[in-house]
Amino acid sequence: MAQEPAMNQTFVHEQLIRFSHCDPAGIVYFPRFFDLAHAVMEDWLADGVGQGLPALIGQRRIGTPTVSIQCDFAKTLRIGDTLRFELRVVKLGNASVQLAYSGKKAAGGDEHLAIRQTIVFMDLEAGRAIPIPEDLRPRIEQYLAT
Amino acid sequence: MAQEPAMNQTFVHEQLIRFSHCDPAGIVYFPRFFDLAHAVMEDWLADGVGQGLPALIGQRRIGTPTVSIQCDFAKTLRIGDTLRFELRVVKLGNASVQLAYSGKKAAGGDEHLAIRQTIVFMDLEAGRAIPIPEDLRPRIEQYLAT
Amino acid sequence: MAQEPAMNQTFVHEQLIRFSHCDPAGIVYFPRFFDLAHAVMEDWLADGVGQGLPALIGQRRIGTPTVSIQCDFAKTLRIGDTLRFELRVVKLGNASVQLAYSGKKAAGGDEHLAIRQTIVFMDLEAGRAIPIPEDLRPRIEQYLAT
Amino acid sequence: MAQEPAMNQTFVHEQLIRFSHCDPAGIVYFPRFFDLAHAVMEDWLADGVGQGLPALIGQRRIGTPTVSIQCDFAKTLRIGDTLRFELRVVKLGNASVQLAYSGKKAAGGDEHLAIRQTIVFMDLEAGRAIPIPEDLRPRIEQYLAT
Repeated sequence: MAQEPAMNQTFVHEQLIRFSHCDPAGIVYFPRFFDLAHAVMEDWLADGVGQGLPALIGQRRIGTPTVSIQCDFAKTLRIGDTLRFELRVVKLGNASVQLAYSGKKAAGGDEHLAIRQTIVFMDLEAGRAIPIPEDLRPRIEQYLAT
Repeated sequence: MAQEPAMNQTFVHEQLIRFSHCDPAGIVYFPRFFDLAHAVMEDWLADGVGQGLPALIGQRRIGTPTVSIQCDFAKTLRIGDTLRFELRVVKLGNASVQLAYSGKKAAGGDEHLAIRQTIVFMDLEAGRAIPIPEDLRPRIEQYLAT
Repeated sequence: MAQEPAMNQTFVHEQLIRFSHCDPAGIVYFPRFFDLAHAVMEDWLADGVGQGLPALIGQRRIGTPTVSIQCDFAKTLRIGDTLRFELRVVKLGNASVQLAYSGKKAAGGDEHLAIRQTIVFMDLEAGRAIPIPEDLRPRIEQYLAT
Repeated sequence: MAQEPAMNQTFVHEQLIRFSHCDPAGIVYFPRFFDLAHAVMEDWLADGVGQGLPALIGQRRIGTPTVSIQCDFAKTLRIGDTLRFELRVVKLGNASVQLAYSGKKAAGGDEHLAIRQTIVFMDLEAGRAIPIPEDLRPRIEQYLAT
């Protein structure tokens, strides 16, 4: 690539809140937000980092398990809402990446939920953390918030 | 009740890790741990606190939404494992309760995951936090870790 | 609309098979296909029939519960596959609609799964089946397979 | 075992309908019934047939994928209800087993849902159907409805 991609990028991802996400109170059942966030991470790996989970797991036998996650829920979401996640990288370690997800209903709107998640790259055969693969590190760094 | 129940109680809850909880790597897909923890909270409300969620929501129109949750994952769990959650109350506010879940495979064993969750009592009609109901507070206090 | 829409239409819907859909054998855990099919029905109601479930339930207080469903699974699907559902209406009753979903990996490809589902329109307040709303019936008929 | 087990047995399994099973209409979201039925099959294999899925999959590398399933929903279930499934075997083929689940709220009560499911025994390495394992066939036959 002749042109260097910009640093400090944000990966934006929108999902429709569906019937199946909502509970008897009519709002999203909170464990499903972690599933929705996982979809964001999957698409970020594929489209932002350039290495999708299917090939990462299936061919390279590398997984990205979560070692810690934290979420604050400020406002609810309902069926028919669009959940817009803005994903940034907060910290890169040797094997780990800390991600921040800001969940809103529209660009520039209030934050409804905020997630911090730490994943590690793991050799699935050995069951052991490994350094972030060298081909992926520069792509991940583009999303590092400064 | 003639006899005062002991303080500093722990609510113990065991669940079988099933096929549907596990991912292509053969371990529990982490968002499902929050669903498993919710089941623990439901059974604690019914059997520990004496007020189950169906009547709390359906008749009293009081919900217990989660305002924040945090989880550290230390060791994985697999299909066929038994997940033993030990639930304690860490803090009682006016409207909020902070819960700590220690997830193990057996009594006295290593901790596989640890969850901190803050719930609030909420008037579902008004959509507003309310003080912990007076009939429930003393029952909840029995689980307060000292 | 000056121009009458054609009869015998097919509603086509594509979804990515994600990590969370798959089981320890690496293939889609079959109950999740019904959740994926429900998403198709939701989008068909919104985009094909012109009346989305959020307003149908929330404002008109009409639901579309499933009274029977049948599925044959011919071939598996894996993480990273795209599931293409082709939806048609097989039969319209007074209150009921029978839907057929053909699940493939690509247009013209082999069928991986085939679903037949009967839904009814229901007054959610009365808890009773009602005739298909008159504004929706002609839109639904456009998808009737002949 | 000195004593022959009786034929024509029924495997009875009860599950609490939880918050997470229910939708914004307050009733069980129908795809979750298939997950609840899968739990019944898992416990039947472990406790009725004497060969649990974890060892069947993990050690013997045999899976039991579903090739077809059919469900009629007659009455709804709500949070706090107990779902009682009565499981019987309807038909045994060379590689396949057809199961019938009758879902009720209490023994002898009305049927709320009825499921017919055909599973096959499959060599997970070869990805091919195999005859029902000889050690399991007589145990499965005990549940054959006559």
